[in-house]
Amino acid sequence: MKIDEIPTPAAVVDASALQRNLHEMSQRLPGSSLRPHVKAHKCTALAARQAALGHLSFTCATPREVLGMIKAQVGHDLLLANAVLDVDRLGQVAQAADAAGVIARIAIDSAETVDAASRAGIRDVVIDVDVGMPRCGVAPAEAGQLADLARQRGLTVSGVMGYEGHLQMVTDRDEARERVAASMSLLRSAHNEVGGDIVSTGGTGTHDLHTIGLEHPTGVTDVQAGSYVMVDTQYASLNQGFEQALTIVGTVIAHHERRYVTDVGLKALGMDHGDPTIDSCNVWFCSDEHTTFSSSERTLRVGDRVHVRPAHVDPTIARHEYLWLVDDGEVVDRWAIDLRHW
Amino acid sequence: MKIDEIPTPAAVVDASALQRNLHEMSQRLPGSSLRPHVKAHKCTALAARQAALGHLSFTCATPREVLGMIKAQVGHDLLLANAVLDVDRLGQVAQAADAAGVIARIAIDSAETVDAASRAGIRDVVIDVDVGMPRCGVAPAEAGQLADLARQRGLTVSGVMGYEGHLQMVTDRDEARERVAASMSLLRSAHNEVGGDIVSTGGTGTHDLHTIGLEHPTGVTDVQAGSYVMVDTQYASLNQGFEQALTIVGTVIAHHERRYVTDVGLKALGMDHGDPTIDSCNVWFCSDEHTTFSSSERTLRVGDRVHVRPAHVDPTIARHEYLWLVDDGEVVDRWAIDLRHW
Repeated sequence: MKIDEIPTPAAVVDASALQRNLHEMSQRLPGSSLRPHVKAHKCTALAARQAALGHLSFTCATPREVLGMIKAQVGHDLLLANAVLDVDRLGQVAQAADAAGVIARIAIDSAETVDAASRAGIRDVVIDVDVGMPRCGVAPAEAGQLADLARQRGLTVSGVMGYEGHLQMVTDRDEARERVAASMSLLRSAHNEVGGDIVSTGGTGTHDLHTIGLEHPTGVTDVQAGSYVMVDTQYASLNQGFEQALTIVGTVIAHHERRYVTDVGLKALGMDHGDPTIDSCNVWFCSDEHTTFSSSERTLRVGDRVHVRPAHVDPTIARHEYLWLVDDGEVVDRWAIDLRHW
Repeated sequence: MKIDEIPTPAAVVDASALQRNLHEMSQRLPGSSLRPHVKAHKCTALAARQAALGHLSFTCATPREVLGMIKAQVGHDLLLANAVLDVDRLGQVAQAADAAGVIARIAIDSAETVDAASRAGIRDVVIDVDVGMPRCGVAPAEAGQLADLARQRGLTVSGVMGYEGHLQMVTDRDEARERVAASMSLLRSAHNEVGGDIVSTGGTGTHDLHTIGLEHPTGVTDVQAGSYVMVDTQYASLNQGFEQALTIVGTVIAHHERRYVTDVGLKALGMDHGDPTIDSCNVWFCSDEHTTFSSSERTLRVGDRVHVRPAHVDPTIARHEYLWLVDDGEVVDRWAIDLRHW
């Protein structure tokens, strides 16, 4: 099957670029120093590629992601890096992990999340620490107390995590390095109170700013990067040496006066970082099932294909059923995006 | 099951408000004068409610929507109001419609779309006319010529459609009325050249600005409204007498310092119209699986539920698997959002 025969809109992956991204990151952060975040792709087939490169610890954002990874038998150490109150779903995670002999660790940041994990039969938790981004995470000074509470409830506390999400897009790398170090000092201070083998953090935007290993003063044990796999127009602006591997391929369905219309719309894109781009074209606006654009450089015909570059990959992929792997114009595989929803 | 037992995030519908919206619109635009757009909800169970109120003509945006409606046996006159070049999918539509004895009409706006419809075995088309919004649609002066081409290819041309999407949010109703009338003059001029029984247009924002019936100088035969069913924060600003029936229900999963976090994030929301709202709260920002917010008026506890109001309903619903129907705190039904994807 040729790329031009894929029904559109379609989430198309440049298989070579993907492989280069995976290899590059594996060289920078080998083995357990990378804990790939599956929320970026929600695809167990892609996670299996990451595992094949030696990364057997993964990060997940939802119970469904953890359950799907266990079912697909990918990874042996899964960190649900999110506060979850749903005892039913956590119970499913605990049972599936026990049955499969997989470690499922749950982030906790409150007495309520300790209680939910305990009631669900979860064995292993990490303390989620606020390192500067206003979201989940306990204050560093309270981390030790929460760990004590968790241990009183019979939970194993394996360490800490803290996501410096507010620093992912700091373009001045010296500034980013300094602020990441300050964030990691907070995380490490919490770790001193909590104990355990895990100090987990980071993302693609800061993956190169961490010292790895507990022996370093502000070192971490693993980086939760996900977006390096595909890269979007926002991450591409950081010039970190990864390639934009994902485009949403559309068909030009109309051409009137100066404008073209392709069948890639809001429902095929994550729009929170703004409009997508099309090479050498000006995007006018997106609607539910369309993007209207023009070009002074390209001449297109109705029926032609265009590659639409999403501004934010993660929520874009979550809108699609499949990733189409393409190499040199040929479809070489189709992967189900099987970790969607909650 | 109580509303507080639904796993979150969940697309929850106030069943009474939905029923009031459906009834209200049915009184304003009874029977075939309303051609409900299923893209707004992508749910055949909801479409069946519309059909039960006497609306047996529907508007669709994708082949999958048409095929799903045929399979669910809802409606007998389905208009795919979009340019489609995919002969395979159009062929599936043609076969399914013929087998079920349903009329499937396809919008065409170019020689290429005529060709695709003809090759796919489609019997019936309408000419999509540009009435002022820069998207699909042939110039009014070229509509007659395109109709001739379609008839030469053996297609039945049933009339015209033209969507005045650029006028849906004009808040000054006198201005809106005037501009809609001008748009409809364009559509009617195209209809004079094309012929046929159908002059289809409109949306929720302009549904009350159309004269219905071919006997009126700028009258149309049916209005393609969809958003009235649920209404979002943007449509609510028009004060048209419909209620916001859909919220995304989340659990408060964290509370630290001044901030709350709920498990409704980008992947559960359409973000193209901006951040969602939470009553009496200030939304700080959304991330993949979270919304961070604060409130000086409400005191919430971890584990409490909150109703998140999406800024744009259509792409929000397309992110979910189910609509949960709730009446007076009790779950009364769960409908599959079965018309998603393409």
